[in-house]
Amino acid sequence: MLTRLNHVAIAVPDLKAAAALYRTALGVEPSVPQALSEHGVTVAFVDVGNTKIELLEPLGEDSPIRAFLDKNPAGGMHHLCYEVEDIIAARDRLKSEGARILGDGEPKIGAHGKPVLFLHPKDFNGTLIELEQV
Amino acid sequence: MLTRLNHVAIAVPDLKAAAALYRTALGVEPSVPQALSEHGVTVAFVDVGNTKIELLEPLGEDSPIRAFLDKNPAGGMHHLCYEVEDIIAARDRLKSEGARILGDGEPKIGAHGKPVLFLHPKDFNGTLIELEQV
Repeated sequence: MLTRLNHVAIAVPDLKAAAALYRTALGVEPSVPQALSEHGVTVAFVDVGNTKIELLEPLGEDSPIRAFLDKNPAGGMHHLCYEVEDIIAARDRLKSEGARILGDGEPKIGAHGKPVLFLHPKDFNGTLIELEQV
Repeated sequence: MLTRLNHVAIAVPDLKAAAALYRTALGVEPSVPQALSEHGVTVAFVDVGNTKIELLEPLGEDSPIRAFLDKNPAGGMHHLCYEVEDIIAARDRLKSEGARILGDGEPKIGAHGKPVLFLHPKDFNGTLIELEQV
């Protein structure tokens, strides 16, 4: 069902500082930060060859990563995003296996303009999983 | 410097249960678990198309993931492993940028039989980073 790891998202308190660190210490070039106000994050992508790292900084008071950073002020790995071919079929399979879909269970348009769902981390060994239909 | 994401490691309390979950709910096939007693883990690999997920269960009292699971009993994302071409050059660049290498700073032979180093998570926004020379 999963066809590819689209990205690993890392929440950071200071995107500019994190981007500089990835550039100087790890030798990879983050993209220019984009403010996605409808998603409550500012994001920079880091191409690491076969997949992407998404550095996420909270934007606005209702940012979905605000609580995570309150618990982890220095930042941390926030979620994994896997690609699927058919997000409705994927959701129905997951529900039939007892996995919980966050929110109302319907796909939303994600930060890449594609349908996404998030799965409850308690059902996947503490890992927040995003599914994206590509 | 980073050339590829080799794997995402997820610590789990029960590898058999986690492997079954990935198979039934996520539709991917974990490898047969391997006990790596010299590394203190039992591991199963999950091919997700462009990279791997490594499911890690502690093995023995001195397991390097024991403390993580004590803090996160349900499991969680433990580290990211990136490939580099020259691990000594990578280490020297990181040290010159002020990043801390765990242990004595010398590469060790990792779970894949290749030289690896771990970087201090406090230097990378709470993310434990493994570098592997491939």
